[in-house]
Amino acid sequence: MHWMNLNKQTDISLRVLMHLALNPDELSTISEIADAHNISRNHLMKVVHQLAKLGYVKSVQGRGGGIRLGCPASTINVGKVVRATETTLNIVDCVAFDCLFTNKCTLKTALNQATDAFMSVLDDYTIADLTKNRRQLLKLIS
Amino acid sequence: MHWMNLNKQTDISLRVLMHLALNPDELSTISEIADAHNISRNHLMKVVHQLAKLGYVKSVQGRGGGIRLGCPASTINVGKVVRATETTLNIVDCVAFDCLFTNKCTLKTALNQATDAFMSVLDDYTIADLTKNRRQLLKLIS
Repeated sequence: MHWMNLNKQTDISLRVLMHLALNPDELSTISEIADAHNISRNHLMKVVHQLAKLGYVKSVQGRGGGIRLGCPASTINVGKVVRATETTLNIVDCVAFDCLFTNKCTLKTALNQATDAFMSVLDDYTIADLTKNRRQLLKLIS
Repeated sequence: MHWMNLNKQTDISLRVLMHLALNPDELSTISEIADAHNISRNHLMKVVHQLAKLGYVKSVQGRGGGIRLGCPASTINVGKVVRATETTLNIVDCVAFDCLFTNKCTLKTALNQATDAFMSVLDDYTIADLTKNRRQLLKLIS
């Protein structure tokens, strides 16, 4: 089995969305976000591209262009973002570990239930909830 | 932040305990478990040593010796085993990722809540629960 391990892309996605939610009245640039959060530009661009495809981010082309949220922060559910950015949310990758118990494994059932519980907490949060302490967070990224 | 990632040691610990629970009336050897589950002997010995220190495994020395559960499978709580074998159960390793939001981060709060929910599901299981389908599992490891 392989255990729960949300990936770096999910981490970056949430931070980008939080960043944009903190700056609702302006366009942010890739460079600005990359610098503010110490994220590689390449990695960031891939993530933003995917977030745009999902509708969470809107890109404005041209001079003075940049990105902003594609919908209100209060409508962006954290659990949904995590599910969308995770390619494998099955913590239990029994095949990779060559586990003999595979199909008959009751541990797998327990872990899947645990993962559901984990995700269902995240389902209760929106990006707006995560950026409620706007003033404090803005101070940190400026 | 760094996400939930339970380690290989936890995986092996649970499989060892399940193996021993499936064979309550005999001593199992390291070689036998290593072979049955395709685990390296070295890794396995470290895990067994820790499980013995925790009281979950009892070692019988000498010829014909081996290991068995140190207490009834029905008293071994899966959540407790996971907590004991995980060195860091904080999914949120904000420092490693150089995250600016660190101390003010509401995402961290959400993720900690989610982890608690994850663990509290595992707290509802014992090793006996995981090996209820004994006959099916025994067939797989023999």
